[in-house]
Amino acid sequence: MINKIKYFFIGPPLPNEEMSGRQLNKIRALAAFSPDALSSLAYANQEIYLGLVVAGAAGLALSLPIAGAITLLLSIVALSYAQTIRAYPSGGGSYVVARENLGLRAGMVAAAALLVDYILTAAVSLTAGVAEIISAFPQLAPYRVALALGILVLVTLLNLRGLQESGTAMSLPVYLFLFAFFAMLLAGAVKLLSGAPVSAAAAVIPLATQPLTLVLVLHAFSAGCTALTGIEAISNGVPVFKAPQVRNAQKTLAAMALLMGLLFLGSIALTQVLHVSAGPNETILSALGRAVLGTGWLYYLVQFSTLGILAVAANTSFAGFPRIAAILSADGFLPRQLANLGDRLVYKNGIVLLALMSGLLIVVFGGNSHALVPLFAVGAFSAFTLSQAGMVRHWLRTREPGWQLKAAINGLGASVTGLTLVVIGVSKFAEGAWISILVVGLLLALFSYIHSHYQDVAAQLSLRGLPPSLRPAPRPRVIIPVSSVHRGMIDAVNFARSISDQVTALYIHADALVTDEEGVRKRWQAWFPDVRLEIRPSPYRSLVEPLIRFLDEEDQRCNDGTQAVLVLPELIPAHPWQEVLHNQSAESIKRALLYQRRKHGFQRVIIDVPYHLREPVHPRPTHDYKKHA
Amino acid sequence: MINKIKYFFIGPPLPNEEMSGRQLNKIRALAAFSPDALSSLAYANQEIYLGLVVAGAAGLALSLPIAGAITLLLSIVALSYAQTIRAYPSGGGSYVVARENLGLRAGMVAAAALLVDYILTAAVSLTAGVAEIISAFPQLAPYRVALALGILVLVTLLNLRGLQESGTAMSLPVYLFLFAFFAMLLAGAVKLLSGAPVSAAAAVIPLATQPLTLVLVLHAFSAGCTALTGIEAISNGVPVFKAPQVRNAQKTLAAMALLMGLLFLGSIALTQVLHVSAGPNETILSALGRAVLGTGWLYYLVQFSTLGILAVAANTSFAGFPRIAAILSADGFLPRQLANLGDRLVYKNGIVLLALMSGLLIVVFGGNSHALVPLFAVGAFSAFTLSQAGMVRHWLRTREPGWQLKAAINGLGASVTGLTLVVIGVSKFAEGAWISILVVGLLLALFSYIHSHYQDVAAQLSLRGLPPSLRPAPRPRVIIPVSSVHRGMIDAVNFARSISDQVTALYIHADALVTDEEGVRKRWQAWFPDVRLEIRPSPYRSLVEPLIRFLDEEDQRCNDGTQAVLVLPELIPAHPWQEVLHNQSAESIKRALLYQRRKHGFQRVIIDVPYHLREPVHPRPTHDYKKHA
Repeated sequence: MINKIKYFFIGPPLPNEEMSGRQLNKIRALAAFSPDALSSLAYANQEIYLGLVVAGAAGLALSLPIAGAITLLLSIVALSYAQTIRAYPSGGGSYVVARENLGLRAGMVAAAALLVDYILTAAVSLTAGVAEIISAFPQLAPYRVALALGILVLVTLLNLRGLQESGTAMSLPVYLFLFAFFAMLLAGAVKLLSGAPVSAAAAVIPLATQPLTLVLVLHAFSAGCTALTGIEAISNGVPVFKAPQVRNAQKTLAAMALLMGLLFLGSIALTQVLHVSAGPNETILSALGRAVLGTGWLYYLVQFSTLGILAVAANTSFAGFPRIAAILSADGFLPRQLANLGDRLVYKNGIVLLALMSGLLIVVFGGNSHALVPLFAVGAFSAFTLSQAGMVRHWLRTREPGWQLKAAINGLGASVTGLTLVVIGVSKFAEGAWISILVVGLLLALFSYIHSHYQDVAAQLSLRGLPPSLRPAPRPRVIIPVSSVHRGMIDAVNFARSISDQVTALYIHADALVTDEEGVRKRWQAWFPDVRLEIRPSPYRSLVEPLIRFLDEEDQRCNDGTQAVLVLPELIPAHPWQEVLHNQSAESIKRALLYQRRKHGFQRVIIDVPYHLREPVHPRPTHDYKKHA
Repeated sequence: MINKIKYFFIGPPLPNEEMSGRQLNKIRALAAFSPDALSSLAYANQEIYLGLVVAGAAGLALSLPIAGAITLLLSIVALSYAQTIRAYPSGGGSYVVARENLGLRAGMVAAAALLVDYILTAAVSLTAGVAEIISAFPQLAPYRVALALGILVLVTLLNLRGLQESGTAMSLPVYLFLFAFFAMLLAGAVKLLSGAPVSAAAAVIPLATQPLTLVLVLHAFSAGCTALTGIEAISNGVPVFKAPQVRNAQKTLAAMALLMGLLFLGSIALTQVLHVSAGPNETILSALGRAVLGTGWLYYLVQFSTLGILAVAANTSFAGFPRIAAILSADGFLPRQLANLGDRLVYKNGIVLLALMSGLLIVVFGGNSHALVPLFAVGAFSAFTLSQAGMVRHWLRTREPGWQLKAAINGLGASVTGLTLVVIGVSKFAEGAWISILVVGLLLALFSYIHSHYQDVAAQLSLRGLPPSLRPAPRPRVIIPVSSVHRGMIDAVNFARSISDQVTALYIHADALVTDEEGVRKRWQAWFPDVRLEIRPSPYRSLVEPLIRFLDEEDQRCNDGTQAVLVLPELIPAHPWQEVLHNQSAESIKRALLYQRRKHGFQRVIIDVPYHLREPVHPRPTHDYKKHA
């Protein structure tokens, strides 16, 4: 049944041959790589507004200059990445570029920053998307967290199914958003030029509660820099472009940067000129939409298409995070399972891990994107800076024709993103940037721990230097733990006797209330008269402790250096989900023995003899059975 | 290490003898049994206010009459339960009383209602407690869900440790709350009588947004009935009272009901007379506190002690839910694990289940107690009604002296709670009561499914009618799946040869990228020249499918009706938490074989041969090992 459910949601398994991807033309590529970057303007707008509104009208008057500075930064970063595309046509993610040019350690830092960044992209995009919906339907405000988690679950399922990042379904929200947003900007421009009055609610100018200081301006600037997140996506994906790949990728990047700049500057300018301000539970984008469009269908289209592109942006994390995690895992820096391709040719463990981490962030931060943003920009700008710095080293190393100009451009990129990183790190430190910095540090420690663990395991498993001979092992002694005398015991005893002539059964009397030692002994002797039965008490109700003690005693008694083997009769219900109806004592005995025997330095073989329960038998006989299972 | 962490948080295991409890005097018993009942007034007040404020001043003027009606209901229910205490001195929970007097089916309904009720008590108490803190510190509002979950985790850990419900630590918040709350009422009364002006903020009378209809009044009444939840607690716990038990329990119940009535009526009266109203993110209790006490230390004491008693109330669910779940489990209506006493003599599975369910409710409903309350009262009043109706049957059956009066009192109790249940069910149906009704229905179906499953298993495991003889099993054939040729293989091959002379190794070529079939074959022949190695491809990357196919082929080839046994070499890391660093292929093979073999109707024995990895060896040799583990 679980398989059926899985099949329904996830689909049938795919063979290895399906791995090769399709090539994308520029229109499709733009839709595939731009959602993260384009959707950033939703929260960047909101953050600039929230950063400045505390200083009242004087503060809000600085929106446009700040947006201008950010757009300048955007164009420098875009130019820098255009060069990365040329230099790394096989895909130049920050990790690859930093590792190749700045060394392993810088690569690790970039990788850790990227992992954090992907998790935060998912959390911030989803919560910002929900904020747009709540702006349109304020009565949903109490369900903020649940809504964000609901969309997260949906995106996760789609990705486990093996959603194509580049699929047509993904293009629709992107172009819908572009259409709706440009329509809104156009309507605003018309309204402005025709001198039509702006709706009353939007014209209230909020009172200043803080003075307009440089700190406050820098604060708003760093928060607004989240507009740049996602701009690096195209440089990772050059190989999926149609030929000429580099040319097409660069053109797409230019188009994307132009769109980002237009939408961002346009919306900020309209907001400032129309003196739009937002109420509680409303985003500034929604307030702008209402001011320009009223509460008609176009307003709702803007809100829903913004949610749509933000959800697609969260989805890009689901492509990026598992991929980088799989690379790190294959290099031995993360658990090996993260490199396993699942039935659907996706890194399902990475997808699940990302979903869990961003779900946790959504819950802890109450579904509030404003609380999450301070954590966000640090990771993104660390990756930018390392990647650009790596490019400078690349040009210095290769000395291609024109390397001086290229190095200068990337150098400029590295400097301005590095400077921005410092501004963000300082101005947002107390608000949450410290969390990201701490997590990056912990990840670096984790990478190093895991790497040395794998190296150590490899050394221990090496056969090198061992004499190529096998000692024959003696025939084993067998111990069978008995929970009660039932039908499943017959197979266990039969198997035990097929491999050994020293079989002992052990009944542990663990129940505090029921005492039926004599009954168990009698029934045992009736069915298995030639197998010795031992009975031991368990004052602490544990099955495991007395079992281990008994095994030790037996091994010492025999004193021939051998260890008894355990035969576990295990009841297997007809369906896996019925397992919750049975005490998993076999399971807990296995786990305990596998780990607790370590101190003696040798291993205990454990033999499972399953007894399969069938589907219900009808009519059901009533019976006083109570204690197995 | 996991054991150490567990030991730190949960403490050392306790022997069976510690089970017997202590007897409580009235003061301690009041502290043990009243928190749920007393703390109910926090959300009941809030619900009455929210129910009436939409009708403005005219609505709020009805607060006191509604509170009066609820207090009358309270006294009837208290009188009814005083009789339950006399009739069931060994503890008369709703499940026991309903099952004994109204039959199994009614008992099941009462049990399902109680389970739902306990989960909601925990969720509502915690979210209401957090609402009080947010009233005092509005800047915490975005962290509503996280705060409630944090306290939930704390309460869960304390209960896993085996916190005594009746401990001194539990009395402190209760008496602190009583002190702070009475001080506030007193201050309010003084202020009122001295004619001192009430603070300006509290004197704003909100505008009506809805007409004052009968439906609205009934709505407010049913929401306010949540004040009664928890009143039944003492009737469950008569055995822990000091002698004379019945007398003392009845006196404590009377004291508790009196306190509930006083606090509830007193706070509602003050709120109404002082025209207190609450702002956004503020509870009406907090608004009352501010109006009467200003924002001084006594105000904060009221808020924190209200959180305190609400947390203790949530804690009573952690005593009640696992106990009723264990009773149902022992009777075969819930999974058997719920009746397992853990190391600390608590039903840990029940505790964890309760924590998960109430955590889920807190997340889904955004930490908003107002959204949860409509689900709440249905369960509580179903249990009340069934329990009182059961008592009526009890008196009709026993016909003790004075049974007519007793039956009349319980009959009155049953009628008024039943009537209230109908009012609640109807007026709150669309807002969430339907969820509770649905869940109770699903629980009843679950009880019945589980019960028949256990009966069916008992029948299948019975040895009755089997011939008392054992066929001797032939010596097994063995298959060893090989992931690579490493040191752990030596033990596995040795063990396999000690029990069988037909050993075959199987290498499944599952990796899409790496191809080293020849290398594996060469190394295998170097180390185990006399063990046959078979190699099979796996186009879908699964280890399990080709393995099962191979096993089938081999069994058919031998054609002697026997099944090959599987020997699994399993790497065991030095610490359990290192498991996440290794692909659990052994684990997934085991699970798949246990379940997928069913169709053939016979079982496959699985033998684990562990190979224990040690703590790191220094200095670490570098090595190109990549693929095991």
